[in-house]
Amino acid sequence: MSFAVPATEQRFLLRHIADLPTLLEEGRHDISADDADAIVEAAADFANGEFAPLLRAGDLEGATFGPDGVHLPPAFRAAYQAYVDNGWGTVGGVAEFGGQALPFPLALAVHDALGMANVGFTLCPVLTQGAIEAIEAHGDEAQKARWLPNLISGAWTGTMNLTEPQAGSDVGALSSQATPYPDGLYKIRGQKIFISFGEHDLVDNIVHLVLARLPDAPPGSKGLSLFLVPRFRLDEEGNPSIPNGAHCVSIEHKLGLKISPTCVMAFGEEEDCFGELLGAPGGGLRVMFTMMNNARLNVGAEGVQIAERAFQQALEYAQERVQSPLADGSSGTKPRPIVQHPDVRRMLSRMAALTQGSRSMIYYTAGLAGRRDTESIARAALLTPLAKAYGSDVGVDVASIGIQVHGGMGYIEETGVAQHLRDARIMPIYEGTNGIQAADLVGRKLKGDNGAALTALLTDISADIDREQPLVDLSNAVRETAAWLLHAEVNDRLSGSYPFLTMLSTLVAGWLLVRQRRIAETLSEGAGWNPEYLTAKIAAANFYVRCIVPEATGLRSSATAGSHVLFA
Amino acid sequence: MSFAVPATEQRFLLRHIADLPTLLEEGRHDISADDADAIVEAAADFANGEFAPLLRAGDLEGATFGPDGVHLPPAFRAAYQAYVDNGWGTVGGVAEFGGQALPFPLALAVHDALGMANVGFTLCPVLTQGAIEAIEAHGDEAQKARWLPNLISGAWTGTMNLTEPQAGSDVGALSSQATPYPDGLYKIRGQKIFISFGEHDLVDNIVHLVLARLPDAPPGSKGLSLFLVPRFRLDEEGNPSIPNGAHCVSIEHKLGLKISPTCVMAFGEEEDCFGELLGAPGGGLRVMFTMMNNARLNVGAEGVQIAERAFQQALEYAQERVQSPLADGSSGTKPRPIVQHPDVRRMLSRMAALTQGSRSMIYYTAGLAGRRDTESIARAALLTPLAKAYGSDVGVDVASIGIQVHGGMGYIEETGVAQHLRDARIMPIYEGTNGIQAADLVGRKLKGDNGAALTALLTDISADIDREQPLVDLSNAVRETAAWLLHAEVNDRLSGSYPFLTMLSTLVAGWLLVRQRRIAETLSEGAGWNPEYLTAKIAAANFYVRCIVPEATGLRSSATAGSHVLFA
Repeated sequence: MSFAVPATEQRFLLRHIADLPTLLEEGRHDISADDADAIVEAAADFANGEFAPLLRAGDLEGATFGPDGVHLPPAFRAAYQAYVDNGWGTVGGVAEFGGQALPFPLALAVHDALGMANVGFTLCPVLTQGAIEAIEAHGDEAQKARWLPNLISGAWTGTMNLTEPQAGSDVGALSSQATPYPDGLYKIRGQKIFISFGEHDLVDNIVHLVLARLPDAPPGSKGLSLFLVPRFRLDEEGNPSIPNGAHCVSIEHKLGLKISPTCVMAFGEEEDCFGELLGAPGGGLRVMFTMMNNARLNVGAEGVQIAERAFQQALEYAQERVQSPLADGSSGTKPRPIVQHPDVRRMLSRMAALTQGSRSMIYYTAGLAGRRDTESIARAALLTPLAKAYGSDVGVDVASIGIQVHGGMGYIEETGVAQHLRDARIMPIYEGTNGIQAADLVGRKLKGDNGAALTALLTDISADIDREQPLVDLSNAVRETAAWLLHAEVNDRLSGSYPFLTMLSTLVAGWLLVRQRRIAETLSEGAGWNPEYLTAKIAAANFYVRCIVPEATGLRSSATAGSHVLFA
Repeated sequence: MSFAVPATEQRFLLRHIADLPTLLEEGRHDISADDADAIVEAAADFANGEFAPLLRAGDLEGATFGPDGVHLPPAFRAAYQAYVDNGWGTVGGVAEFGGQALPFPLALAVHDALGMANVGFTLCPVLTQGAIEAIEAHGDEAQKARWLPNLISGAWTGTMNLTEPQAGSDVGALSSQATPYPDGLYKIRGQKIFISFGEHDLVDNIVHLVLARLPDAPPGSKGLSLFLVPRFRLDEEGNPSIPNGAHCVSIEHKLGLKISPTCVMAFGEEEDCFGELLGAPGGGLRVMFTMMNNARLNVGAEGVQIAERAFQQALEYAQERVQSPLADGSSGTKPRPIVQHPDVRRMLSRMAALTQGSRSMIYYTAGLAGRRDTESIARAALLTPLAKAYGSDVGVDVASIGIQVHGGMGYIEETGVAQHLRDARIMPIYEGTNGIQAADLVGRKLKGDNGAALTALLTDISADIDREQPLVDLSNAVRETAAWLLHAEVNDRLSGSYPFLTMLSTLVAGWLLVRQRRIAETLSEGAGWNPEYLTAKIAAANFYVRCIVPEATGLRSSATAGSHVLFA
């Protein structure tokens, strides 16, 4: 199939939804809006050329584990080297250590292009970006100088080591140990599971960020510290030549994302394993939180990335596959491309609308995350669990519809459409399950500020949607449900958390699409944007408001049902 | 995991929803209600013992294709032989040729038990049942005597050969040819795809029913005739000893259902291939329709079967997996089984309610299909596309939720929960895509009788749900939407067909669950039914009405949006 990163859509969203021009004008970045457009187009070209063609090979061959560790197929080593050589690793890092320090939404757009092309492979750069952020924010100057240049260039990669078998969502139950050792080092001991790209042969060194407990640390999450544990320690020249006891002991046999090795990591089991403390003792969770918001936004983006690829493939198939429609009175039964069959059209419209709606939320949140004013920070915090959960849910839903559009061919692995569903199915789970996101939304975010950030958001939304009755209805339902949740007993609040998350996500996505439709209608009278793009944007907004928004309003009963319905 | 077929639920539904006692009393069957219960329990025992343990092996090893044809792993050959030896093949067949001729819903319950235990493997008996029905209804006496005894015993199996590469949903485009030959035979020539169990090594012979065209047949579906084409022709003693040119040339590499070989079948390519005409020339589609309603009901049942297995596995995991809930004010954070976390509870409640609701529709429709009065026939015809589409959609949804309940472990193939989603994903596609079911619903079924069967159904529903406001609301929405669809232009009607199908399915399932709740409340005062079963039934009905029914009401806007939203 002929996949292409939708760079026009990325530029449109950066400009009109993430408000990138204002971010650039505020002068903290030395690039123009035209530069930004050029970067987006160049990233799309690179992703189309180097990452996209490897999607199915990654599924078929995947990462493998043997006596000498984890390997990726040679084509992936070449593609990763091209990524480094072309400087794509540097988009987010600080200038002092070789980064371009692009505004956050623009850096996200670059990773988004790579992810649309090859979502599993792109996990590696994205996780590295998380490690970079943690070290930038919490490392001392020596640590920054030691680790950042090679992480930012992409010469080394980074990981996050959190989960243990007994501690998944329950991070307080983590038990890995760190014991002080001379020279400011710590001996690390423990086992971690579900570590993406925990080991591989793309680069010379891997920098693990590992949550563990110092001796006499209190139980629970307050007793966690974060340690930087390299695969190879650095010699006096700074070369990663000293083996460290941090090893992959097996990789998982997963439903999808097979190019991404999901490692069981053993630290200090047969050899000594040394790490450095990153941030303050007992501050592990705080460092984690630094990375977590961006990581969650990235996972939401991953879902949308798969949705985009699934949509393009389904559309292409529907335009090529010719079948007679089912006879139904006057409809006629002449063979025609199935894209002209109304129910296939409905599926494609749904795919497009969900994809564009959820992507809008990702870019909008990324724009907020690039700002430092109080209101933006609060709104980004409110929207991050939505972006993660809704984006990842959309990924699964759209991938599944893509199979349906293909009919029987969708079930055959050779067409590659089943891979999208298999790849997408992890996203509602990792980086905090979507249930955790929903609990975060109604607890920390809604209850935490007594609804202030939500009220501010709803006020902005109300100002934009006055003639859109489905959105007005949903907005009212959200407001009333939120009021109910705020005063509900905790188990009732949690029982309604997930339907409420979907209601609010749909409202935000619908609002952002209506805003885009208005802009598209204006732009279509001028020049500079592809008219087909603008027409499709308007159609997606109309479908979303008419067909998807009312479904979310139907969740109100579920959101306010209370726990007695569940615990009867 | 410890799976067990829910025989209590099957008995409850047969008695109270399929109305089996009345069917038995009407005297066409020589068994009592107690006999029926015993058959259900025995089928469950057999399925639990022989079929259920092989589920994962079927996924791991699967059917294989080599130079000497298609093979299943030896354990499956033994299980199939046990199925034959225990007489389970005979449940549906006529007595004259060795069948037990059980009432239709009871025979369905037996297949349902097998399918819950091992859905992919059970396709083989279920497809054979379809061939039996076609031959019973359309074969001449000699054909019945020749083919039925061994098909009914299970010594031979049957297939349905419909799809060709250029003709999926579009059966009018089929091009396989049949040329008259002496002795009442026809030479068959053509290629068929997606033929489940088209070849295997479980039995000595396979009876293919093949749609093909006689010379000078008119184009389109009216020119199709059905041919009975054995893998081996019978010698004078009736033994299948004469090779016939009907061969599997490859099997598909599929997302799931790997124990079921999906064959590309070549007829008459390198050797002559002979078949018998079944039914009248040009009557192929009519014969197909004989089988189609039951086949569609069976596919709906398959979705529910997977849902049941996924639910049991998720519940067991949630009862065993201990994690602290996310801290949220007063909720406390003591570790507890995740079944006590509200959002996990929500997921399990949803799985249970969807499973029981859709299963109710299957058994209710099966009860109607066992009757010959005009009203039952019309209602069964109306409900069959719902049962197929809703049951198969529920299978996918519940399997996906089951992965989510398992968290990261759900993504690891070893736990077996991802298999449920992979297996389920074909059911909305085969035996007429769910889009085709929706078109059938709003066209042939709704428009075809100008809404008469629907109106009769809604009248019955209204009489039962007066105090259930969500169901009343949905019922009104269904009535008004149906009126709109009846008068809509054909493309508008088709554009709203799928949301309407889901609305009506949900209404019927909700209605049947409310009826069951009423019965369960009555029964719980007496003896004879497991109190835990009755409590769970009441809880599922309450959840369904409160949380799922209003979602369907939210589809009304989509169902009446018209085609301009799709074709803009």
